[in-house]
Amino acid sequence: MAHTANYQLLLASTSTMPGERFLAYLSEELNTLFGHTKTITFIPYARPSGMSWDSYTRHARQTLAALGYSVKGIHQWDNPLDAIQESEAFFTGGGNTFALVHSLHEFGLMEALASRLAEGIPYLGCSAGTNIAGLTMQTTNDMPVVYPASFKTMGILPCNINAHYTEAIIPNHQGETRMGRIQEFQSFNPIPVVGLPEGTWLRVKGHSIHLEGNGQAKMFTPDQPPQFIDQIPFHAGQYH
Amino acid sequence: MAHTANYQLLLASTSTMPGERFLAYLSEELNTLFGHTKTITFIPYARPSGMSWDSYTRHARQTLAALGYSVKGIHQWDNPLDAIQESEAFFTGGGNTFALVHSLHEFGLMEALASRLAEGIPYLGCSAGTNIAGLTMQTTNDMPVVYPASFKTMGILPCNINAHYTEAIIPNHQGETRMGRIQEFQSFNPIPVVGLPEGTWLRVKGHSIHLEGNGQAKMFTPDQPPQFIDQIPFHAGQYH
Repeated sequence: MAHTANYQLLLASTSTMPGERFLAYLSEELNTLFGHTKTITFIPYARPSGMSWDSYTRHARQTLAALGYSVKGIHQWDNPLDAIQESEAFFTGGGNTFALVHSLHEFGLMEALASRLAEGIPYLGCSAGTNIAGLTMQTTNDMPVVYPASFKTMGILPCNINAHYTEAIIPNHQGETRMGRIQEFQSFNPIPVVGLPEGTWLRVKGHSIHLEGNGQAKMFTPDQPPQFIDQIPFHAGQYH
Repeated sequence: MAHTANYQLLLASTSTMPGERFLAYLSEELNTLFGHTKTITFIPYARPSGMSWDSYTRHARQTLAALGYSVKGIHQWDNPLDAIQESEAFFTGGGNTFALVHSLHEFGLMEALASRLAEGIPYLGCSAGTNIAGLTMQTTNDMPVVYPASFKTMGILPCNINAHYTEAIIPNHQGETRMGRIQEFQSFNPIPVVGLPEGTWLRVKGHSIHLEGNGQAKMFTPDQPPQFIDQIPFHAGQYH
């Protein structure tokens, strides 16, 4: 491996479990992740349902304040690139992955963020915020509400992530299953994909990737049958 | 209206009803649409599950041969633009909308096809093939397996289409509902969207648009509550 990275990432499938409050199921994990860090920079660009960056940041701030953290939105810096360089921790919330990736590319932040994370800056990602740790955003479930400059993402993981992974099927419906969609993606792009069910997360420490939470993940390896796994069969940062 | 178009389009939500064969539920409609036309040019670029253009064309050919039509794949011309100019009817099959739109832009066919359809050339679209009659492909349900040069589509309809529209919900799952996704799209792009449930289709004749098939459609008008409709409240071609 050419470079040594000191990743401290928690990459969750979802921010919110059914019937629970925002981040509630992760609150203990956040202590472990953020440690003595007091201030977290929130990246609200995925803005779910089109809510404003301000509103989404307020929402994150309310929850994280109760856990002892102060939160500043990345858009509240004069230059978001300064936020990337100066922050001591990041949280990228879920929402629309196209919107998130569009803004990160528009402001020239994608590679800068990846570099900071390699230095060991703690990072929490949920849903879209987890997706961008992969090679590309192309296994998102979201609608293409905006046209990003590129589908390329941080490439910290040597795979793509499918968040909210499910094998549930809507009866009498001809739309593809999630598994079918991921396999279709792989027929165009032969790269591994990890389907991350809700309630599970990846914890990246240094170069190791651990699957944690309430279940297994579904591993899609090109040209092999997909299978449920307990352990992630590769390391972070191998493309850096 | 600046120009007069003579559209003859059948824009179906799906190609295949549950438990039925490919196009079976539309076979009578195809007679009405294609009339005495004997040869249909098939546009296989959406290639579901990543199947080849050849395989997908073979699949369409088998079904349409039984109904008395011969089928040629657009990729079987030396230049696909010649196919657009010379064909007497088109059928664009479903699959991945990103793949379809990518190829149509790559080969410079999107506007050429729209122009031919304005002349009255019969057109059958299913799913992705229906989506491209709208203003943009941005209300697709598909994964972004490839990066198209643009999300813009033919703009024959003054709205976007969401095919396979459903209000079904997967229990205990935090992914957005279809309605939520469409409303999120509209918070970024305030244009109308028609959610077309399976078994329904739009028949475009001249400039009129009729909703046909086994049900209603869901009309999403920006800043208004969505509602089920029996009739389409606008006309085709108003952006040409």
